[in-house]
Amino acid sequence: MFKYKIQSTSGKARAGTFTTPHGEIKTPVFMPCGTKATVKTLDPIEVKQAGCQILLGNTYHLHMRPGSELIAKHGGLHKFMKWDSPILTDSGGFQVFSLGRTENNKPKITDDGVEFYSHLDGSKHFFSPDKAIQIQKNLGADIIMAFDECAPGDSSHAYAKQAMERTHKWAVQSVDAFKKYCDPAKQTIYPIVQGVIYPDLREESAKFIAGLDTAGIAIGGLSVGESKENMYGMIDVVVPNLPDSKPRYLMGVGSPEDLIEGVYRGIDMFDCVLPTRIARHGAFWTKAGRQNLMNSKYRENLELLEEGCDCSTCLAGYSSSYIAHLIREKEVYGMRLLSIHNLRFLFRLMEQAREAILNGVYAEFRREFYENWK
Amino acid sequence: MFKYKIQSTSGKARAGTFTTPHGEIKTPVFMPCGTKATVKTLDPIEVKQAGCQILLGNTYHLHMRPGSELIAKHGGLHKFMKWDSPILTDSGGFQVFSLGRTENNKPKITDDGVEFYSHLDGSKHFFSPDKAIQIQKNLGADIIMAFDECAPGDSSHAYAKQAMERTHKWAVQSVDAFKKYCDPAKQTIYPIVQGVIYPDLREESAKFIAGLDTAGIAIGGLSVGESKENMYGMIDVVVPNLPDSKPRYLMGVGSPEDLIEGVYRGIDMFDCVLPTRIARHGAFWTKAGRQNLMNSKYRENLELLEEGCDCSTCLAGYSSSYIAHLIREKEVYGMRLLSIHNLRFLFRLMEQAREAILNGVYAEFRREFYENWK
Repeated sequence: MFKYKIQSTSGKARAGTFTTPHGEIKTPVFMPCGTKATVKTLDPIEVKQAGCQILLGNTYHLHMRPGSELIAKHGGLHKFMKWDSPILTDSGGFQVFSLGRTENNKPKITDDGVEFYSHLDGSKHFFSPDKAIQIQKNLGADIIMAFDECAPGDSSHAYAKQAMERTHKWAVQSVDAFKKYCDPAKQTIYPIVQGVIYPDLREESAKFIAGLDTAGIAIGGLSVGESKENMYGMIDVVVPNLPDSKPRYLMGVGSPEDLIEGVYRGIDMFDCVLPTRIARHGAFWTKAGRQNLMNSKYRENLELLEEGCDCSTCLAGYSSSYIAHLIREKEVYGMRLLSIHNLRFLFRLMEQAREAILNGVYAEFRREFYENWK
Repeated sequence: MFKYKIQSTSGKARAGTFTTPHGEIKTPVFMPCGTKATVKTLDPIEVKQAGCQILLGNTYHLHMRPGSELIAKHGGLHKFMKWDSPILTDSGGFQVFSLGRTENNKPKITDDGVEFYSHLDGSKHFFSPDKAIQIQKNLGADIIMAFDECAPGDSSHAYAKQAMERTHKWAVQSVDAFKKYCDPAKQTIYPIVQGVIYPDLREESAKFIAGLDTAGIAIGGLSVGESKENMYGMIDVVVPNLPDSKPRYLMGVGSPEDLIEGVYRGIDMFDCVLPTRIARHGAFWTKAGRQNLMNSKYRENLELLEEGCDCSTCLAGYSSSYIAHLIREKEVYGMRLLSIHNLRFLFRLMEQAREAILNGVYAEFRREFYENWK
């Protein structure tokens, strides 16, 4: 269980398989967000049919509501939401820092953990590595995350170093808590590389995290406002310091370009709310880039979102005009149709990337992607 | 085409079949509302799987946005929204009177038609029988409605009489326009009985409308604020004046009790937004009546919405607790799951009613319904 096998590489890009209790994941892989135990607007069957292999659930949100104990009573998140393929949960760290405060109460960070106030009702909470792992045991995801401090992208070197060191300490404590609470036949843990945009810190963090006894490694703090150059640069610093034998998960990243670049630099796993979020606002992807369905040119356009697309929205024959009408009217079904199209776009992109890696032609695949992309 | 055959009766209740170009409808039948070319939150496949035989589309809404010409360019509403079973469109009359005004501009009614201002952008419009039929030809529904004036439930006898007489005049004009514009192999028209809550007017209207050469008859103006006693009383006045040979459609009615009572009194067709609207607010039906999923007792309830229910939500095994969580979080998927349950409830109720009629035991079926219903 939780074995990563690499089938092929093409440059730094890797095609592999990761075995979990809920099935095998073929990498590179994009994971959509089922933040509150649902991928927004969609049902598990349409998510699966679009090509989803593994879902992400958010520990912070699910702990706040409905509570991880209630989910445990259901037999875990898989049974609660009727998703029988793999699930990954984040540690809650990112949300604690971004949501866990009231206007006057910033989260209070000590080496023991974080005291914060719920963004929902202002109630006081305390997250520690131990607590984050206990919650994730309750949720029962296949892959769980170590508790980390995700420092803002504009942090000083001094603060970034402090947050990184705390993240390392918490990573060790998280792995210990994992051994204490979790069944390694059912769950596995990834610790998280931090270091903001400082190459020396990223290198140090990568080496430290790589040294822990875990099945995979996550790279955090790289979709928090820094430039794309910094994001790609940091991946280039981190990846050479990671072992080939473990899957590498770049957290919170999900635009088509970033996936293409991430895979090119040796990343195996991604997650992001982007495909479903932009869908709800009427944006969608085609080979030619991001399109805005609210543009008046689509109002009477009887064509598909993209000719030749194999998503169920396009296969059913819905016109751009119909979907634009629904989105304009704020009809949920329009959001569903675009969400499916966008998810399928990313899943297909990763399937094609994998194929290109297996054929040893990822660089050409990447070049062709940019020839169309605007 | 558009033949109504009665298989059996049980008291005044009738079990029949109505043939349309998009398939046969088994009556009694409940029609959900696909107001803006979608049944809110659902896709055509799940609506069909829940047991839907025929959908209702709203002429006023679709004419305002996206426009009936655009829908005609798609080949009609069936192709626009990918629904290949029967569709019925209303005449737009009800919405013209209820929505078609700004605060200072009430719709201006003359014998020629209604001048009104769009509730969306304040633009000026004119609906007449001729116009309403042309729009409905564009939409291409199997069953279309004559243009009528739906007077408020608290109208005086004098005004109710005036509105009824205008409705009769418009019914004749609508049937003429239907013969002029529409292909009787593809579409058929129902005129509408009016008369508010005045028995003499309802009787006069029923006799007049029954005399027109149409395949079916609608009864309007009976879900507009009058008491249930008045609604049932008016049905009892109207039905004996209608021919047995034509299906009878009670417009805008859709609570389980009203369906049970309508069928008991000889009604064959119903439509209402109720099942999907209450679902979006967390209410659902069981044999025991209307339930509120937001009640705290459901928060940790691991049971189905209703044990033994054959809706896809219950068959998939979703707990009341999970759906309550989604609705609380305003997650669309919760609204979808409850909408499916409520639609299936009404479709199943009509299937069971039909079975009881075929077995000649509708009165017993009605009594058993009330034994459980609270």
